Amino acid sequence: MTKHEGIECGIKTGNPEAGLSCSIKDAIELTLLPGVGCLTQGRIKKNLRNISDVFSLDTDALASLGIPGEAYPLIRSRSYQKIAEEIYDWGIREGCKFLLRGVPGYPQLLEEICDPPLILYARGYPEILGKSCIAIVGTRRPTIYGLQMAQGIAADLGSRGLCIISGLARGIDGAAHRGCLEGNGITIAILGCGIDVVYPREHRQLTQKILQKGLLLSEFPPGTSPAPQNFPIRNRIISGLALGTVIIEASEYSGSLITARLAMEQNREVFALPGNITSPQSFGPNFLIKQGAKLVQTWRDVVEELPSELRQELLIKEDAQTPGKPELELLSEEEARLLQLLKEDEVTQFDKVYRASGLSISHLSDLLLKLEMSGRIRQLPGNLYVRLRK
Amino acid sequence: MTKHEGIECGIKTGNPEAGLSCSIKDAIELTLLPGVGCLTQGRIKKNLRNISDVFSLDTDALASLGIPGEAYPLIRSRSYQKIAEEIYDWGIREGCKFLLRGVPGYPQLLEEICDPPLILYARGYPEILGKSCIAIVGTRRPTIYGLQMAQGIAADLGSRGLCIISGLARGIDGAAHRGCLEGNGITIAILGCGIDVVYPREHRQLTQKILQKGLLLSEFPPGTSPAPQNFPIRNRIISGLALGTVIIEASEYSGSLITARLAMEQNREVFALPGNITSPQSFGPNFLIKQGAKLVQTWRDVVEELPSELRQELLIKEDAQTPGKPELELLSEEEARLLQLLKEDEVTQFDKVYRASGLSISHLSDLLLKLEMSGRIRQLPGNLYVRLRK
Repeated sequence: MTKHEGIECGIKTGNPEAGLSCSIKDAIELTLLPGVGCLTQGRIKKNLRNISDVFSLDTDALASLGIPGEAYPLIRSRSYQKIAEEIYDWGIREGCKFLLRGVPGYPQLLEEICDPPLILYARGYPEILGKSCIAIVGTRRPTIYGLQMAQGIAADLGSRGLCIISGLARGIDGAAHRGCLEGNGITIAILGCGIDVVYPREHRQLTQKILQKGLLLSEFPPGTSPAPQNFPIRNRIISGLALGTVIIEASEYSGSLITARLAMEQNREVFALPGNITSPQSFGPNFLIKQGAKLVQTWRDVVEELPSELRQELLIKEDAQTPGKPELELLSEEEARLLQLLKEDEVTQFDKVYRASGLSISHLSDLLLKLEMSGRIRQLPGNLYVRLRK
Repeated sequence: MTKHEGIECGIKTGNPEAGLSCSIKDAIELTLLPGVGCLTQGRIKKNLRNISDVFSLDTDALASLGIPGEAYPLIRSRSYQKIAEEIYDWGIREGCKFLLRGVPGYPQLLEEICDPPLILYARGYPEILGKSCIAIVGTRRPTIYGLQMAQGIAADLGSRGLCIISGLARGIDGAAHRGCLEGNGITIAILGCGIDVVYPREHRQLTQKILQKGLLLSEFPPGTSPAPQNFPIRNRIISGLALGTVIIEASEYSGSLITARLAMEQNREVFALPGNITSPQSFGPNFLIKQGAKLVQTWRDVVEELPSELRQELLIKEDAQTPGKPELELLSEEEARLLQLLKEDEVTQFDKVYRASGLSISHLSDLLLKLEMSGRIRQLPGNLYVRLRK
């Protein structure tokens, strides 16, 4: 792999290659400094024309950027410059890609969260970050139900062209990646360790499969071990890259609930799989649904909440692939007659339908409910009904 | 039993007894007429000073009330007068009570629905209709999960003084009545047959237990057999008598979904028990939750949606009965410190908490979520937090 490929995302900007590789090295160095987290990195990026300028600022200027005193001597002596260069060289050698904030190739949706990482390390195909992504996450100790549903929903969404993001953890995360691959979809794993660390070990093979078409991403420098505190931090990347996050199973204090909360804070959709209230693993999703997360019965429930253009594209594609519409013939004569009483472009009052139908209120309510559940009509507030375009 | 007891609800109004018993007989006769349903009965009641006057109206007047032609000769010849008298006499003899619209004792909430029955036949203690009622309904073919949950939630609500209404059907309905009785609560069964018909037969014993403190109600004249079409009709009485209806399990086209729809139309709360999406019996509740029904994890989820005075009464009673508050000591030092940063009477912005806490965003989010789940704080729209009074 040449240096050219190693920083392909940056090259597309037309920046001089040398300047960009320099910025990448300096960005790496910045992220290694103690006390300089993503928010501080963000302030540096916002206030300086070039992040490399931080290394020549005086104490007052450093302080005004919120950089803590402990970092000043390390900044002046460039203590981490050598390590940063080693990381950069290792990346180039190993085919790792660097995604830098503000440089094309850095995921757009992630720029919108309050604390995007300055740099992301990537293996695989970073260009798939341009696709529409859905995150599917959950507990590391799932039930069979949770595993099956994670796999099934991931396959359903992945096969329809949505990219599935998860955290490569044991349990639900692994099942989501696997399901997506089974559906011939593309999947992205966000790691809580360095991009070069395989964790958990049993996901070595899965990692290889993901990399064939997909992507591994981490904000942690190569070599970072999977410390427990890393995982909640990486969760914001999972939710931040996705249009919405589906919580499959999560017990009362599960990290997946944090991912859900982050998704809400990031103004993204939150979906949850309902489950029996007797199952501790369903506590989290049920709790989230109570808090406003959308209940998921099928992949359609996810697609229905996506931006309208994308939603229509996915649903139209689906309809085109469904041969014929056999279910239309399953309408009873009574149902078909009732359907005729409703319009596609105008609401009809229940009372009007009632009088025109000649049916009893309870029987009519029954039929309207059936038609609504089969997706042929919709009830609107005020007891109004419209027929849906099929 | 004396005549006096038989019409006790009416007597409380101070109406002359003779007049009321006459009205009751005429009301019964009216409900027996073909083509005269609850809506027509409602129009008659609304337009005539005394419903008995209907029997002396001319054709034009009858037509203007929406009474169909087939009924005119039967009205004029008082064809059903004798049967109505027999029903009345039977009721007095058997200790059946008659609840007549517009006469005190007729349930207030039922008056608010669009098609309340003109007369209700009651066995047991009609005065309990003055209590706050919650309906719990579901499929006749439940899973063990559904049965257990119906019984448990009914016991939890019943033991706290809420009256549990259901339809005495096999399955969930039976479990709801039983659970309420186990919790020493009072329960009301709404029948789809005459008040003198035991259906299903295996609920004979349950019926006796319900009657010890509770009530059987039916709008169908004594002797009416449990025809399938009666059940959706009686469902509106179940939802109409209750502040809210809890759907436990219901398959795709279950009558319980109709009860839920009726509850929505009647502007009552709808609650649903979530379940695994692989269970056909949980399709209905999950579907309803997607449509806006409140997900129920515990009895508290029901109580929280009740009118505020009732809610506070039930929750305060509960807190008073909970010895000490041991869980308060389970707060970690960090959580306790965080709690101090929030106020009970004023919202605090996330950002402010973040800066004051000195914690990382992800760790802080984690702690806030824990505090919210333990009911100590609440997040409000706009990323604002308040501390809840404990």
